[in-house]
Amino acid sequence: MARIAVVAGDGIGPEVVAQALKVLDAVHPGIETTRYDLGAARYHRTGEVLPDAVLTELADHDAILLGAVGDPSVPPGVLERGLLLKLRFAFDQYVNLRPSRLWPGVPGPLANVKPGEVDLVVVREGTEGLYAGAGGVLHRDTPAEVATEESLNTRHGVERVVRDAFARAARRERRKVTLVHKTNVLTHAGSLWARAFAAVAAEHPDVTTEYQHVDAAAMFLVTQPQRYDVVVTDNLFGDILTDIAAAVTGGIGLAASGSINPAGTYPSMFEPVHGSAPDIAGKGLADPVAAVLSAALLLDQLGHADAAARVTAAVGVELANRTPGVPLRTEEVGDRLAAHAVA
Amino acid sequence: MARIAVVAGDGIGPEVVAQALKVLDAVHPGIETTRYDLGAARYHRTGEVLPDAVLTELADHDAILLGAVGDPSVPPGVLERGLLLKLRFAFDQYVNLRPSRLWPGVPGPLANVKPGEVDLVVVREGTEGLYAGAGGVLHRDTPAEVATEESLNTRHGVERVVRDAFARAARRERRKVTLVHKTNVLTHAGSLWARAFAAVAAEHPDVTTEYQHVDAAAMFLVTQPQRYDVVVTDNLFGDILTDIAAAVTGGIGLAASGSINPAGTYPSMFEPVHGSAPDIAGKGLADPVAAVLSAALLLDQLGHADAAARVTAAVGVELANRTPGVPLRTEEVGDRLAAHAVA
Ligand SMILES: CC(C)[C@H](C(=O)O)[C@@H](O)C(=O)O
Ligand SMILES: CC(C)[C@H](C(=O)O)[C@@H](O)C(=O)O
Repeated sequence: MARIAVVAGDGIGPEVVAQALKVLDAVHPGIETTRYDLGAARYHRTGEVLPDAVLTELADHDAILLGAVGDPSVPPGVLERGLLLKLRFAFDQYVNLRPSRLWPGVPGPLANVKPGEVDLVVVREGTEGLYAGAGGVLHRDTPAEVATEESLNTRHGVERVVRDAFARAARRERRKVTLVHKTNVLTHAGSLWARAFAAVAAEHPDVTTEYQHVDAAAMFLVTQPQRYDVVVTDNLFGDILTDIAAAVTGGIGLAASGSINPAGTYPSMFEPVHGSAPDIAGKGLADPVAAVLSAALLLDQLGHADAAARVTAAVGVELANRTPGVPLRTEEVGDRLAAHAVA
Repeated sequence: MARIAVVAGDGIGPEVVAQALKVLDAVHPGIETTRYDLGAARYHRTGEVLPDAVLTELADHDAILLGAVGDPSVPPGVLERGLLLKLRFAFDQYVNLRPSRLWPGVPGPLANVKPGEVDLVVVREGTEGLYAGAGGVLHRDTPAEVATEESLNTRHGVERVVRDAFARAARRERRKVTLVHKTNVLTHAGSLWARAFAAVAAEHPDVTTEYQHVDAAAMFLVTQPQRYDVVVTDNLFGDILTDIAAAVTGGIGLAASGSINPAGTYPSMFEPVHGSAPDIAGKGLADPVAAVLSAALLLDQLGHADAAARVTAAVGVELANRTPGVPLRTEEVGDRLAAHAVA
């Protein structure tokens, strides 16, 4: 039986995670869950972000399901670097997977894009680049101050994530991978990415490839999001592009993500892209769809593709039946999703 | 009399520059222009990108008007790094100014944003950050390969561009500046930017401020572009955000830019954001509006605010009278703009 670590987190985190667990239990009964109390609340109570002992315990699970962590009262960076990024790096979660679909029934912001037309997935590198934390500040608060950030890219790290992107594309209908970088300015890292991409592409004659600069991709995600199938890109570009992709498909309220260690040497982590939304916490108004879709990614990663597909289909039914403007109740959405998923 | 260096460039560059010069001459007769032949054509003919002698001559002008450079036949990076970025750095053009308006009459891609509602300007840093070119590759094409890119940020460089952003905001109606960075991940550079921003903000109690992470800003530019007035950000974030801002306001076909040296120690450069569009070059089909709006920025920078306003107003008339779907003729648009601007 799969053993899942659950980090419900702060704000609306516990509410949406409860629905995700309800749906998981419906489609795949018997998952063993252990709760870990991490996030803003624990930080305030104990000063701890991610104690080593907890990290060790987390490592001993098949996957992690996370709701949302964070609160305006925590200094910026503390939970991001100390918890979320720490887990991505410690557990070598190098595939940061972010699918975006414009679901029928969801009013997207783009006038000329019809529901059903957008179905893309961004494979964002998760363990390198500007997220490595390399850099420093000298002569702070003097006119001579200088601050640096260094993007670190290895052939090892880039090739493995590009390989994952091609493998995913080969299983999809359109079989297309778009590499996004900024090779005309970031010539060093761009060269490594472009060469690793070309090498992996040569092993996949069945997959169509294209290259775009990140500024052009940001634009085309707004004007022609339909053109993308699989997008592979570095950590920071992926951070930005996935928020644009979420925006054009109805908002981060619906966006799921997986921080995946494909080899399974450490657990992968699944979480909605939205934050803890303290303003609506505890009111039962949060949309659990992103958390539920994240649970579907988790099922898929653990080899339960059928169960994952049932959850995804249930989300399709739910969204197609929503009446815009009618407030939703978190629990009721969870109940409906669980019911649809086993219907 | 103002002395302008004109780099018409490749593809549609010469066509749109001709209209910009026509309009400039109408509203501000007597500008002295010198042509410089730079771009893909010269590179192929002579192997030269930007000879030192030309750089020295360019320095001796009040401003540079550039059409577009580039062609698929030129290896990526050659003209970008050797010409465009070279000029920005050599002439210390640290304010990269990119206004975006959703003009009445222009069909934008966003269903819920009405013409006239978006009027923002991005003040992008132009001489630092990841554009510095710092980095390298080791162990190329071996499994041990590593490539780095370093973002260099100085208090000097950041404070001056932030100061410019606040000065611009103070002259606008809404008086609001949004700092965009990624302080929760890029903690070193983020700290410098945040502290420089706070210091300058303290001198401008009349200006409202806000901070957003770059991923959030990318999303809000799609879902609520109306919320922005002046946005200040680093070189790479500015590259990406300005393409999103262009996309939501009708495309880069209408987007103008200025690479400005506010002190005037070297000439500033003005250019449409669009490229050389080799596919439609020579056909008289290119829209000269972005080049003409760039000429308006040039006039403004040289102290001719009234003439600049007349050109901008002429663009407003032109765009309001366009019938979507009807092809335009480059020359006719130029004629109409010149006529409106002096009407
Ligand atoms: C919270 C932050 C560190 C994180 C990131 O930048 O990766 C978030 O924006 C995301 O996309 O998961
Ligand atoms: C051509 C390229 C070097 C340039 C940049 O990245 O600045 C362009 O994208 C721009 O925005 O002016």
